[in-house]
Amino acid sequence: MSAESAFIAALQALATHPAARGLADDCAVLEVGGETLILTHDMMVEGVHWLPAQDPADVAWKLLATNLSDLASKGAEPIGVLLGYTLTADNTRFTEGLGQALAHFGVPLLGGDTVRTPGPQTLGLTALGRATCRPVPSRSGARAGDSVWITGPVGTAMLGFEALQSGSGADSTAYRRPAPRLTEGRALAPRVTAMMDVSDGLLLDSRRMADASGVTIALDPALIPLPPGLPPERIRDALAWGDDYELLFTLPPDLAPPCPAFRIGAVLNRGNAPLLLGGTAPEGPLGYEHT
Amino acid sequence: MSAESAFIAALQALATHPAARGLADDCAVLEVGGETLILTHDMMVEGVHWLPAQDPADVAWKLLATNLSDLASKGAEPIGVLLGYTLTADNTRFTEGLGQALAHFGVPLLGGDTVRTPGPQTLGLTALGRATCRPVPSRSGARAGDSVWITGPVGTAMLGFEALQSGSGADSTAYRRPAPRLTEGRALAPRVTAMMDVSDGLLLDSRRMADASGVTIALDPALIPLPPGLPPERIRDALAWGDDYELLFTLPPDLAPPCPAFRIGAVLNRGNAPLLLGGTAPEGPLGYEHT
Repeated sequence: MSAESAFIAALQALATHPAARGLADDCAVLEVGGETLILTHDMMVEGVHWLPAQDPADVAWKLLATNLSDLASKGAEPIGVLLGYTLTADNTRFTEGLGQALAHFGVPLLGGDTVRTPGPQTLGLTALGRATCRPVPSRSGARAGDSVWITGPVGTAMLGFEALQSGSGADSTAYRRPAPRLTEGRALAPRVTAMMDVSDGLLLDSRRMADASGVTIALDPALIPLPPGLPPERIRDALAWGDDYELLFTLPPDLAPPCPAFRIGAVLNRGNAPLLLGGTAPEGPLGYEHT
Repeated sequence: MSAESAFIAALQALATHPAARGLADDCAVLEVGGETLILTHDMMVEGVHWLPAQDPADVAWKLLATNLSDLASKGAEPIGVLLGYTLTADNTRFTEGLGQALAHFGVPLLGGDTVRTPGPQTLGLTALGRATCRPVPSRSGARAGDSVWITGPVGTAMLGFEALQSGSGADSTAYRRPAPRLTEGRALAPRVTAMMDVSDGLLLDSRRMADASGVTIALDPALIPLPPGLPPERIRDALAWGDDYELLFTLPPDLAPPCPAFRIGAVLNRGNAPLLLGGTAPEGPLGYEHT
């Protein structure tokens, strides 16, 4: 067990409140005053989660977008965010990007904290949302017989990252400014049996959903949407790359999604492998493991 | 204007939501589903907010306690917290201390995020609470004629810090494990005209309350409670040292506080100086400025 896994296990042991499925499931779900609140907190570290040369305006956008994606996976409507920010010599571009992103998503900045650090810039964002349907979707509800769906292609952010890193001039928007699927999440929430956002790679997140639900998820590689023009030798990489922030969800077999989406597989009774890709357990990396 | 002041001013311009007095006033205050939620987020950086040699269990305690102190200043009842944590080689003591503190204050851990960093450890905590009375106290309500009060001495954390730094063996508990005034905050909230916690120094925080309220606050140095045995030459330091997390509040002149507290001054109509100490504007540092 890695230091991180051990720590998360220890935190999980501390988190005995019923709302605290958040530690395993990205968001906390909390009944307050007749509303169901959704809370999530994500951190980003310079050089780990973004390239040091990146425009801080894009970093601000991504910090907000990734947290809103967690809310989207719960079908939640954002209420507001709090920012934790380590100061740099010039904070102008970050502020501009944050302002653009807040306006774009219609989310208010409610508060936060700023500190100085001698180290790399470290950002935290807490997003608060309101559930739009109950029960709130989780990753643990997939049942044998369900179909597996995704709202869009995987690999677009990978190509964006590589364009940015190489300076090729190709479009890097998907990596720099991801679009959380808030509208789709709200439309899907009352219908899905399970839902999560794909932040760490389709294969890894599918396996997590399978493990949380106690099922096997069988993906059909021929059905998985990919960015146009992706070279065939990059397909396997795209399946394990994260950052696309599409929604992965399961539906009862007779139900069609209420928004554009791609059927990419089926839920089976739990077999020897939690995840099948074209009928066999995939080898090699499944995604971005936080260890 | 420092880089930080400029950034906070820019954030303030972004924070147009009525709940977002948080950016100037520590906490956001938000109406949700018949409840008034209080939200706060504080960060701590190794080597900036704590000594690298400190026990991580104390760091965890302080991270929780300082955020709960923000809730206390609003008279709020804690609902839960989310943790942002950068991993180290051994996270055991932090987990133990966090568990102790959560149990001590009866506050659940709801979720959070863990990341790796090549730099100093950087922690964030978001605390969510529920207001117990409305209107929720703020720092802006002090009126001429009010009396000024504090729940306990200032300078105890300073002595604790110095004991810890020097290894003298004197008691350092007040610095390492501050006690947020949650009970007092709830008792005071319906009665006070203004309230805030003293995190950055009595003089600085008094000036902030005076500025926010548009008044002058006149403190009587003979009335300010100090730790027993504080040498006279350290009194001025104690008035500008933070970390004691006592509550500073104002009451109408005919009202006595419902909990142990010390009357330390009076609120006057705004004069040339926002803050008077023994009748004159204090010179020298007022407290810990985040710049």
